[in-house]
Amino acid sequence: MFLDKNKKTIIVFSGDLDKAMASFIIANGAAAMGNEVTMFFTFWGLNILRKPEKTSTRKNFLESMFGWMMPRGAARLGLSKMNYGGMGAFMMKAIMKQKNVNTMQEMIETAQSLGVKMIACTMSMDVMGLKEEEMIEGLEYAGVATYLGEADEANVNLFI
Amino acid sequence: MFLDKNKKTIIVFSGDLDKAMASFIIANGAAAMGNEVTMFFTFWGLNILRKPEKTSTRKNFLESMFGWMMPRGAARLGLSKMNYGGMGAFMMKAIMKQKNVNTMQEMIETAQSLGVKMIACTMSMDVMGLKEEEMIEGLEYAGVATYLGEADEANVNLFI
Amino acid sequence: MFLDKNKKTIIVFSGDLDKAMASFIIANGAAAMGNEVTMFFTFWGLNILRKPEKTSTRKNFLESMFGWMMPRGAARLGLSKMNYGGMGAFMMKAIMKQKNVNTMQEMIETAQSLGVKMIACTMSMDVMGLKEEEMIEGLEYAGVATYLGEADEANVNLFI
Repeated sequence: MFLDKNKKTIIVFSGDLDKAMASFIIANGAAAMGNEVTMFFTFWGLNILRKPEKTSTRKNFLESMFGWMMPRGAARLGLSKMNYGGMGAFMMKAIMKQKNVNTMQEMIETAQSLGVKMIACTMSMDVMGLKEEEMIEGLEYAGVATYLGEADEANVNLFI
Repeated sequence: MFLDKNKKTIIVFSGDLDKAMASFIIANGAAAMGNEVTMFFTFWGLNILRKPEKTSTRKNFLESMFGWMMPRGAARLGLSKMNYGGMGAFMMKAIMKQKNVNTMQEMIETAQSLGVKMIACTMSMDVMGLKEEEMIEGLEYAGVATYLGEADEANVNLFI
Repeated sequence: MFLDKNKKTIIVFSGDLDKAMASFIIANGAAAMGNEVTMFFTFWGLNILRKPEKTSTRKNFLESMFGWMMPRGAARLGLSKMNYGGMGAFMMKAIMKQKNVNTMQEMIETAQSLGVKMIACTMSMDVMGLKEEEMIEGLEYAGVATYLGEADEANVNLFI
């Protein structure tokens, strides 16, 4: 029955710090309120889940170019607006520290401890040349059909 | 029962003129068709609701920097694409005038007269250093839990 | 009854190659799984559906400026991030070819053959000075009320 449904899905397409924060604030809030939450990371959103350290992987030329240009993990994301080569993200993080707001890395850990299901989109990983060894632990790997199955069971579905 | 539900929610994350317009066109259209509509303004979206005049508020250095760099209100928003330092937004507004499309300020007034509920996200306000005295009248102030409660009652939930 | 509903809607606001791809991958996936799918193209998203060739249309000065600055069709879209004057989009397309991912033009054809309903937003067309003769075949033309009617019948509604 509809009113009993308490599942939410979020497609995290963006890899910007501000949008990543919005995604995790909603996901963690919903999970804390007893919802089942699935986050589906695709395109630039996959960068949020990269390990910060360099990982040795076999990549062709174009894959290496993309891998080199994209941020490695939650600590290196920029803002979608007013980033000014990283100054904006730096200011945002300074303010968040001042206000005792959790960092992105802490938000990801909270999501994992609350049981938020995080799925990395395999098709985007293939296009962007990202390999499972460069991603953080605890992810599931699947495609759009899995996302659609999850969304069908949810009553709130967002694309961020 | 599902088919009787006629509530919509929109998270307005973006502070770009074009996305703000899209948000209010959907919100006002839904409200005019008899829907209950809740708009939840967060991050850059809060700038749409700032008063145009300078307001004296107590801010620390980082808050002042953010406040100074972000647009003060609906009349000063830029486009998400092809803004060219404001030229794009200027052209868009000239065309809208030519075509008798309402301005952003008029769309906000229409929303308020149609009873659209506008909530400003208190957590983003805190992070961006925005104070209630710099915001237009008629807003509610709340956090993500309130948004999630509203979304649970709605049959269409968008993130813009 | 809710669980029987298998309709999806997507508002395609963005005209970026990466977001257009995400829109069509979701739409085509849902349609292939038996869903009724409606895509509502508005603002920059309309550029995805422009014919690649120059079309002679009557436009005033501002309309011509917009028309000249915006990409004509799916083959000319840029990336939302790391576009670097078209280099990023070029690299993305080279990788997609390498990985045998369909081009945007092929995705649009697939959508049409799967019966995805594509609606061009008449109000945005008016604002951006786009005319029906410059758009590809097979589109419907309607406004926000039509979108809202479709969304009311769907169980997943996204804004991209």
